[in-house]
Amino acid sequence: MIRLPDPKPEVLARREAILAGLRAILPEGGVISEPLRLKPYETDGLSAYRQPPLAVVLPTSTEEVAAVLRLCQAEGVRVVPRGAGTSLSGGALPLADAVVIGLMRMNRILEVDYANRLAVVEAGVTNLGITNHVSADGFFYAPDPSSQLACMIGGNVGMNSGGAHCLKYGVTANNLLGVKLVTMAGEVVEIGGRHLDAAGYDWLGLITGSEGQLGIVTEVTVRILRSPEGQRAMLAAFRGTEIAGQAVDAIIGSGIIPVALEFMDRPCIHACEAFAHAGYPLDAEAMLIIEVEGSVAEQDMLLGKLKEICNRFDPISLKVAQTAEESLAIWKGRKGAFGAVGRISPDYLCMDGTIPTGELPFVLKRIGEMSAQYGLQVANVFHAGDGNLHPLIMFDANDPASFHKAESFGADILKLCVEVGGCLTGEHGVGVEKRDLMGVQFTEAELAQQRAIKSAFDPAWLLNPAKVFPLDGNPALQRAA
Amino acid sequence: MIRLPDPKPEVLARREAILAGLRAILPEGGVISEPLRLKPYETDGLSAYRQPPLAVVLPTSTEEVAAVLRLCQAEGVRVVPRGAGTSLSGGALPLADAVVIGLMRMNRILEVDYANRLAVVEAGVTNLGITNHVSADGFFYAPDPSSQLACMIGGNVGMNSGGAHCLKYGVTANNLLGVKLVTMAGEVVEIGGRHLDAAGYDWLGLITGSEGQLGIVTEVTVRILRSPEGQRAMLAAFRGTEIAGQAVDAIIGSGIIPVALEFMDRPCIHACEAFAHAGYPLDAEAMLIIEVEGSVAEQDMLLGKLKEICNRFDPISLKVAQTAEESLAIWKGRKGAFGAVGRISPDYLCMDGTIPTGELPFVLKRIGEMSAQYGLQVANVFHAGDGNLHPLIMFDANDPASFHKAESFGADILKLCVEVGGCLTGEHGVGVEKRDLMGVQFTEAELAQQRAIKSAFDPAWLLNPAKVFPLDGNPALQRAA
Repeated sequence: MIRLPDPKPEVLARREAILAGLRAILPEGGVISEPLRLKPYETDGLSAYRQPPLAVVLPTSTEEVAAVLRLCQAEGVRVVPRGAGTSLSGGALPLADAVVIGLMRMNRILEVDYANRLAVVEAGVTNLGITNHVSADGFFYAPDPSSQLACMIGGNVGMNSGGAHCLKYGVTANNLLGVKLVTMAGEVVEIGGRHLDAAGYDWLGLITGSEGQLGIVTEVTVRILRSPEGQRAMLAAFRGTEIAGQAVDAIIGSGIIPVALEFMDRPCIHACEAFAHAGYPLDAEAMLIIEVEGSVAEQDMLLGKLKEICNRFDPISLKVAQTAEESLAIWKGRKGAFGAVGRISPDYLCMDGTIPTGELPFVLKRIGEMSAQYGLQVANVFHAGDGNLHPLIMFDANDPASFHKAESFGADILKLCVEVGGCLTGEHGVGVEKRDLMGVQFTEAELAQQRAIKSAFDPAWLLNPAKVFPLDGNPALQRAA
Repeated sequence: MIRLPDPKPEVLARREAILAGLRAILPEGGVISEPLRLKPYETDGLSAYRQPPLAVVLPTSTEEVAAVLRLCQAEGVRVVPRGAGTSLSGGALPLADAVVIGLMRMNRILEVDYANRLAVVEAGVTNLGITNHVSADGFFYAPDPSSQLACMIGGNVGMNSGGAHCLKYGVTANNLLGVKLVTMAGEVVEIGGRHLDAAGYDWLGLITGSEGQLGIVTEVTVRILRSPEGQRAMLAAFRGTEIAGQAVDAIIGSGIIPVALEFMDRPCIHACEAFAHAGYPLDAEAMLIIEVEGSVAEQDMLLGKLKEICNRFDPISLKVAQTAEESLAIWKGRKGAFGAVGRISPDYLCMDGTIPTGELPFVLKRIGEMSAQYGLQVANVFHAGDGNLHPLIMFDANDPASFHKAESFGADILKLCVEVGGCLTGEHGVGVEKRDLMGVQFTEAELAQQRAIKSAFDPAWLLNPAKVFPLDGNPALQRAA
């Protein structure tokens, strides 16, 4: 169970004055403070935890964000930034004494520049909104989180989001050119820009994935890419999860980089097939969806090599899509995987760890053993190509003991990821969910240095303070509390 | 002219005690203090500036680096890390009261892991040494600075080095998985690792390109890539630099990403041809070297598209290499370009700025106009594909007025880069060279925030302190001085 820092009594006592100050800054309807209207903001994609905030503000410009932060800084009020609230690690979970800054009204596409292959957008533009805006001209924005229809680019920057197609194109950090950031002191700074490199420190990199703890991103400049001529998927089904893991290892080891390389195990295949009727092989223990792109000749060449590699692992079946429709059919089940697992078990924890791809067979075997020990079912569906695991641990939310077991099981999986040389998160971030496991990954000296970076941006620890770092042993938060 | 901070009198006064302390830490021959033996360390690739240090130490292990830093921290001694001393921005320029930490004895390859496509090496391994170690097995390390035979991977991390082939493969930051870093307090921390993403802040990104100001990197884990099946170059010559710039713009705008896309203007073509007899077109105002790679079929397909694009710009000549030997011949002149320009003018400043590729035609035109105004010749040879300019400004080092003019010309070029939305550096770093231009790129609030990051790692500003930030207005250094 997650612990939040105690609310500051002096902030709760000044609630009315703070609300009046916020109303003076924001346009009509920009401040939400009624309990019922705060409800939608009390949790996010990690719905296991809930906490209504002091208030929610909905700014429409960078200047309004700056004014809100200056007020909060002066009053010592904590703030929690929020995009679409799709975080799976509780990154947007409010605090009782915090102002939630919702960026959803800042949703304008400011500029598209095809000659320099970039787009400048406000933080509240959705991930898919960028691609939709440029696709008719033959361009796209590459990172594609499963939530791309809803999630906002500001949140993508905060979490350094990935997606199925990041194997080839990289994650948010690899597709980002610049941000406009408002510091806790209310100063507006431009980081990065229209060029590839930057003078001074790589603080664009530092901001990416900093989970809203170093400042609030209000504008984002992203790289847009030319759409490929076409793409095609293949499906390979195997007799065992370890064998499928070995096939992944062989594909990556061969030097081929498919656009996507997705893994599903037996429970996941069955759930998806029942849901999507995609024609998945129900006799398989594991299957891979592998997508390539380029000209038809390139697709044929790459698919030929991939078939040859998969055939070394005695597959049950190999199906290569011949048309775009057949590719879509192969993807249909995968895209609905989380919903499909939700039909078997309404409650599940979606874990997110990353391992060296060479460790896949071993880690999958260990997860299977742990599943038996804990007596909890697990479905594995994940981005295998870059070693980003998403075990879905099923439990019964009506039974607190079952939830605690699921939490322990999840923690054990993440510890295993770190043990084999991997890390606690791939694309969901640390948030509150993995906060207390940071000590598994980092030494006290390493955590202290990261906290010092946080303090350099936000000395009073007002920005999203209860996330990323363990609460215990955090001197800044203890001073603040 | 460059100004260095005043030496600290208390450090100079304790020189003998500090040397004795260093000798107690390091093995025989690991401390250099005799004036003659300090000579080779008094400058680096930016040979315009020279300053002998207090001493040079040559540690052989991370533990020795940590012990040296603990001693220097206790004594308030500044330190300057040094790899091969090939920095073109003066990143390894010593200070009179500083200990230079040379990493060249830490040159072991610790591990190569093909299944996970990575290598773990000490900071003093040369860039090319990594590729040489794995090439027989069909792998390579991608970033390829011109100095790759000499420069060391630790310095590559410090400067986020690039190279001709970074258009496709990215710069150091994109090929780095982890580092072992010693903080100024002498603590050893591991950042990143064998996985793609990391929990917590992206401080691996932050360390990359931090020019030795946040800690000393002693071990590096790099991504190694499968060598391509083959590669081939083409040479395209044009009637004007602006036209060639438009061709670059069209190539990048088409979505094709060659492995390399290099630009040379008339003075550079003539210098290189006289030097290397590569068969370059002497009647051209500008030429491009474009390299593609992959299977023969892929090469043919890409070269065909590139020829079609180049033909739209009325080229004087187009030559496509049919063999590996013909490719090498095309590259021969480019690889020797800096030496070739050195034969025309022994003294030149090699600038390094980055611009959006769409601005190439305009910026090349302006550089030509400025060259006429200053009365100084300039040769342009650069990585056009990613907009990374390297104008070589020729001057007479025996004439101080000529040197000052060259410095002003260089500063004007970098200001122009920033004006069109680019930045002060592409791959050489800020060092001392561009330190005083940081105010052109960044506001005072932006510089203050970056200085706060530096202070979070090194509160007393002992690590390479005279670089990156303007000396004036640096409160930390003024306190320290």
